[in-house]
Amino acid sequence: MKGKLFYAGLLVFFIFAGIAHYAHMNTTLQFIIACIAIIFVAGFLGKATESVAHYAGERMGGFLNATFGNAAELIIAFFLVKDGLYDVVKASVTGAIIGNLLLVLGLSIFTGGLKFKEQKFNVNLASHNSSLMILAVVALFIPAIFTGGLTTKETSNMSMIVAILLIAAYLLWLFFSMVTHKSLLSDEAIEHGEAAWSKGMSILFLFVATVMVAFTSEWLVGTLEEVTHKFGLSELFVGAFLIAIIGNAAEHSAAVMMALKNKMGAAVEIAIGSSLQIALFVAPVLILLSFVVSGTPMNIVFSTYEIAAIGVAVFITKSITQDGSTNWYEGLLLLIVYIILGVVFFLV
Amino acid sequence: MKGKLFYAGLLVFFIFAGIAHYAHMNTTLQFIIACIAIIFVAGFLGKATESVAHYAGERMGGFLNATFGNAAELIIAFFLVKDGLYDVVKASVTGAIIGNLLLVLGLSIFTGGLKFKEQKFNVNLASHNSSLMILAVVALFIPAIFTGGLTTKETSNMSMIVAILLIAAYLLWLFFSMVTHKSLLSDEAIEHGEAAWSKGMSILFLFVATVMVAFTSEWLVGTLEEVTHKFGLSELFVGAFLIAIIGNAAEHSAAVMMALKNKMGAAVEIAIGSSLQIALFVAPVLILLSFVVSGTPMNIVFSTYEIAAIGVAVFITKSITQDGSTNWYEGLLLLIVYIILGVVFFLV
Amino acid sequence: MKGKLFYAGLLVFFIFAGIAHYAHMNTTLQFIIACIAIIFVAGFLGKATESVAHYAGERMGGFLNATFGNAAELIIAFFLVKDGLYDVVKASVTGAIIGNLLLVLGLSIFTGGLKFKEQKFNVNLASHNSSLMILAVVALFIPAIFTGGLTTKETSNMSMIVAILLIAAYLLWLFFSMVTHKSLLSDEAIEHGEAAWSKGMSILFLFVATVMVAFTSEWLVGTLEEVTHKFGLSELFVGAFLIAIIGNAAEHSAAVMMALKNKMGAAVEIAIGSSLQIALFVAPVLILLSFVVSGTPMNIVFSTYEIAAIGVAVFITKSITQDGSTNWYEGLLLLIVYIILGVVFFLV
Repeated sequence: MKGKLFYAGLLVFFIFAGIAHYAHMNTTLQFIIACIAIIFVAGFLGKATESVAHYAGERMGGFLNATFGNAAELIIAFFLVKDGLYDVVKASVTGAIIGNLLLVLGLSIFTGGLKFKEQKFNVNLASHNSSLMILAVVALFIPAIFTGGLTTKETSNMSMIVAILLIAAYLLWLFFSMVTHKSLLSDEAIEHGEAAWSKGMSILFLFVATVMVAFTSEWLVGTLEEVTHKFGLSELFVGAFLIAIIGNAAEHSAAVMMALKNKMGAAVEIAIGSSLQIALFVAPVLILLSFVVSGTPMNIVFSTYEIAAIGVAVFITKSITQDGSTNWYEGLLLLIVYIILGVVFFLV
Repeated sequence: MKGKLFYAGLLVFFIFAGIAHYAHMNTTLQFIIACIAIIFVAGFLGKATESVAHYAGERMGGFLNATFGNAAELIIAFFLVKDGLYDVVKASVTGAIIGNLLLVLGLSIFTGGLKFKEQKFNVNLASHNSSLMILAVVALFIPAIFTGGLTTKETSNMSMIVAILLIAAYLLWLFFSMVTHKSLLSDEAIEHGEAAWSKGMSILFLFVATVMVAFTSEWLVGTLEEVTHKFGLSELFVGAFLIAIIGNAAEHSAAVMMALKNKMGAAVEIAIGSSLQIALFVAPVLILLSFVVSGTPMNIVFSTYEIAAIGVAVFITKSITQDGSTNWYEGLLLLIVYIILGVVFFLV
Repeated sequence: MKGKLFYAGLLVFFIFAGIAHYAHMNTTLQFIIACIAIIFVAGFLGKATESVAHYAGERMGGFLNATFGNAAELIIAFFLVKDGLYDVVKASVTGAIIGNLLLVLGLSIFTGGLKFKEQKFNVNLASHNSSLMILAVVALFIPAIFTGGLTTKETSNMSMIVAILLIAAYLLWLFFSMVTHKSLLSDEAIEHGEAAWSKGMSILFLFVATVMVAFTSEWLVGTLEEVTHKFGLSELFVGAFLIAIIGNAAEHSAAVMMALKNKMGAAVEIAIGSSLQIALFVAPVLILLSFVVSGTPMNIVFSTYEIAAIGVAVFITKSITQDGSTNWYEGLLLLIVYIILGVVFFLV
């Protein structure tokens, strides 16, 4: 990340990835270059987001991180919904949630914990995040339990109603956390990140970086099917792990960066905030969109595997974050649970 | 609730509901009048309970609220057990538990939170309530998991033993919370409610109000079967939602009243205390009673739907109350979970 | 425990149990004598461990207690694995975990709570223990959920990988709690137990006591099969309750002793530390050993009953210990859950 060298790499690999894509080069080559390119563009997005965050305050910055971090997922999922690939959508939603809670948060806590013995953050934020995550689990668990006794029509009605309730809960959460109880949830010990650019330039670069992430993501996704077939991987594993890891690269670098600066509140906000946004906003919006786009709407009924994975991720994240303090071992625990889930998803 | 006007409404609707019942008027009319009447008698019970609570102290008052709030449920359930309608009993037990945890508590926290930015209560009380709620979930979950390998005789033996253990746990809880650790669980910042009447009159009115609630409940229940058939509702939905909402009207008004006076400790005690009393005392007593009343005793094996609903309600309530502080958004979350459960129970 | 009388009983019953075993006396007699003998040798082990703990510090002492407390289980399980009795191994692992969490901890909290109104311990320790227990539940729950779609070969591969991850998590936990974050987890109010002997003698007696426990355990196990058939008990019940209760006698006496001395941190460390060691170290080691010893390795897939029992035990223990404070009623709750599980395991 040494200034000029970084921007040179960013431009070279982004352009190279574009050429590889439009020139229809060898798929495995396309894939590898796109992967490298996405690390750079995600890093750029992280820088830009942090610079904007400097002007916007820590918590609003965390929210911006979550929003721009999910841009890639939203674009990918939108394409999948349009093609009616509902199972892959659900797998990638699952993957994004557990990826944020276990991998992004785990890596942030672990690396932050190697540098600082103990990292503290606002316990009210952790407590509210927990309750919202439980709402997300409940909203996925209940339909799956009750769906046995329902017709397709009833299931789709139920899905629409639950989706609307979740979106309402999410919008009211924004109202709560940004308007009525802003001070309750903000971190006391805010230590502002340096601003790389002026306010105007920061916002411009945030926009540019988002567009670059979106393009690179698309190029990458285009190669995924062929590459996965070549290496014999299942759609569930690819959706829940490969897409999620690559799609969350932005959160990764941003959250880890925050953790290394001892701003654990912001790292938690990025990781948990992002998974909440996916569960309570992105997924329900996709359900409503699917109703508009296609004849048969996507339902909210996730598979037992997916609910078990999300439930387990929420449960251990809640246990680890609820005291408002983290250390390297707690990060490691999250990573171990992620690896266990990765192993079983890979085998299934 | 403007004094004289309230008491006029109370008398008029109570008498009108009685006439409608005994004169066998149109069932839908009977139903509507009984619903209005129960709002008034429940309000009266709330007033009387609060007045008694003024003399008895906040926590004992909360306990009184729970006890008198469950009077209606107990009477209804007793009739159902006598008729051998065990599935409806279990549905109404389920409904009473989730109604108290999600609807009563949710409404109290929400309305209290609209008036006060943050409401605090004794965190020890919340912590002990959580542990007892988990005992209740365990006591319902374990028999349901293990029942596959058991004969009817063994299931009924198991139900009796678990019922006796739960009653013992409940009675020892009363001993713990009223005798050995009274100070641990009491709220520091008690702000006594005004007493409407003298001590003697308060107790008399508490008795009168309880009798009025009982009568009105019975009239209402008498119309339920016909009304639900007319409007095409399932027994599960009626038992778990209609009966529970109407039967809990007393807790509703009492708990919301407490919350609006910033006595959140008392509101929590009413709502959670009431659901604990149902799970750990009313339900086990009904099991033992069923053994006495009929040849085939009611077992403790609840359906997957019911256990899922109770488990989900306990889990989110625990998450929200464990920090001893509430706000409007946390009340809203409880209400959203209640609506989601209502939707799926309605559809099943 | 009056000095000389105790040591006389120890020697008499240990020798008597040995004679009964090698002379092939009546099995029921062998069983009863071995039971009495094990109470004495466990008491001796408790004394020796506490004396060593005096020299080693409270937390290291707790760790020693856990280690030597599990010696008996390890030896028993090793024999069972060698004979390929994998179901009994899993039942006894289950029994050891729930026995430590519910019976040992419950009895400690209950008896300690009868003597002291409130007993406090380091809340960081409780919080980390909770997170590790959740890892243990996740590691058992995930394979059981996903195993449906796997071949025997894949299941055994998954079991090996998960076992290695758990052992890594356990060893890093020791590194964390003994090296990098020792002070975070230690109890402030340490009140050292008296040392019965010199440091050298204490270590010698610890060794002697461990050997005596091992021998007595083996003699006892030899009689179990015949005795259980004679009294018509299932293997599941015997493995999960009888073996676990007898095998945990050392933790029992040691943990209860600590609780009665108001050293609740040490009691919690013995009980929870012991169950963590079994879940995260003993069980995975047995899986790896089974791979070496026999052709078909033992898999990590526990039955629904076993996972439900462990999950329930972890959940209620977490709820009760998370505030770092206990009282008699909380101990009672743990014991009631243990009895409920005992009843259903006995009936199944």
